[in-house]
Amino acid sequence: MTSTSTDDLVQSLAARVTALEDTIAISQLMTAYGPAVDSGSAEAVARLWTEDGVYDVDTGVMRGHDQIVAMVQSAAHQNWIGGGCGHVLEPGHILVDGDTAVATGKSQLIIHNAETGGFDVRRVTASRWELVRIDGEWKVTRRTARLLDGRAEARELLAAGVRA
Amino acid sequence: MTSTSTDDLVQSLAARVTALEDTIAISQLMTAYGPAVDSGSAEAVARLWTEDGVYDVDTGVMRGHDQIVAMVQSAAHQNWIGGGCGHVLEPGHILVDGDTAVATGKSQLIIHNAETGGFDVRRVTASRWELVRIDGEWKVTRRTARLLDGRAEARELLAAGVRA
Amino acid sequence: MTSTSTDDLVQSLAARVTALEDTIAISQLMTAYGPAVDSGSAEAVARLWTEDGVYDVDTGVMRGHDQIVAMVQSAAHQNWIGGGCGHVLEPGHILVDGDTAVATGKSQLIIHNAETGGFDVRRVTASRWELVRIDGEWKVTRRTARLLDGRAEARELLAAGVRA
Repeated sequence: MTSTSTDDLVQSLAARVTALEDTIAISQLMTAYGPAVDSGSAEAVARLWTEDGVYDVDTGVMRGHDQIVAMVQSAAHQNWIGGGCGHVLEPGHILVDGDTAVATGKSQLIIHNAETGGFDVRRVTASRWELVRIDGEWKVTRRTARLLDGRAEARELLAAGVRA
Repeated sequence: MTSTSTDDLVQSLAARVTALEDTIAISQLMTAYGPAVDSGSAEAVARLWTEDGVYDVDTGVMRGHDQIVAMVQSAAHQNWIGGGCGHVLEPGHILVDGDTAVATGKSQLIIHNAETGGFDVRRVTASRWELVRIDGEWKVTRRTARLLDGRAEARELLAAGVRA
Repeated sequence: MTSTSTDDLVQSLAARVTALEDTIAISQLMTAYGPAVDSGSAEAVARLWTEDGVYDVDTGVMRGHDQIVAMVQSAAHQNWIGGGCGHVLEPGHILVDGDTAVATGKSQLIIHNAETGGFDVRRVTASRWELVRIDGEWKVTRRTARLLDGRAEARELLAAGVRA
């Protein structure tokens, strides 16, 4: 092998490693959401988004870190986590395109039932995570979440994430 | 470092990067199934399999793209997604061996309950995904899915995926 | 490009590939737990831990392979899997620091309900996996699991996994 061909291979490897790092970084961003939100770690939740990032849920829209922090600190959310709950995420389907990416997947909100001692699945939600790479770090610009209760909007969101 | 030792390191890195790409690609194939099937994206479901790939579920066996498409477009499946449902996958345990691979994991079929407003877990299924690399792309040759209702076959399928 | 700069790039790539391999290896260790425990593969469960590794669950503490094997072979666990159950794991949030790592995530214990034919979520548990690399292989030194029934300990465990 000549030194030139090694140089070429190294350049190609560098691009492939970057692509792998992007997918893993986005996957790790998504896996931080559950532990952060279930523990009431409001700042850790908010910093997954850009400063003006949007969290658009069928139950309400949050814009920017302050509104996301406020949601985690709200009485409603504190009641969920005080009584026992888990936001359980499946692995996302991740499509990276340069410095932006889209990840698609579902989450369950599961609530402890003090009466039965078991747990009830309160919500199953389809999510589209739109991400951007800023200073080498992936952040959410918009997460759109729609309840899978039969509404067409939730199905369309999922379809968009796997369209060829 | 001599140029020769760099060449050797680069060759070894290339093999390691390929191994990582394989695992990530298979993981991304699996994460496409949920969004595709829950949104009724029949072609997106089918193209995860080889042309003559088999989807062997305890409720019926589908052979080839046409039968998989027909399942997604069936009244039964359209009823699930019309009423609200999520096929939630856990991350698979992936073992790659050259140009073939096996991935093992479970999925839940969760159904919206219009009466309670919550969701019911209808099925928990053990899956074995047998995959092949064709023209650089991973495809499913056979996915075997068995309900975890106590039947030995489901346990055996899971055991086979983690056998030393 | 001079040979020296290629040498530098190759060294840097090698470190990045190792970091990716660590995350994937830990993720694959975690995905082996479910298939192993749900199929009663006692040795496959135990070998995820170091010889003297600890599995500290709110319902009891196991120390070392023998006690983990005994748990899987216990009448209680055999009853779960005989009746039908799935330990469903979400993807973990993985932080590697040299030869140690911490992974944080939740799991569901879902039980087949012979009466309804459906499944009930019996437990949702927060887990902290503490890992070490030994002879190039990642093993669990301690997994701490706490039921998400509102107890502060479970929330603290999750918060620790995503603390900046």
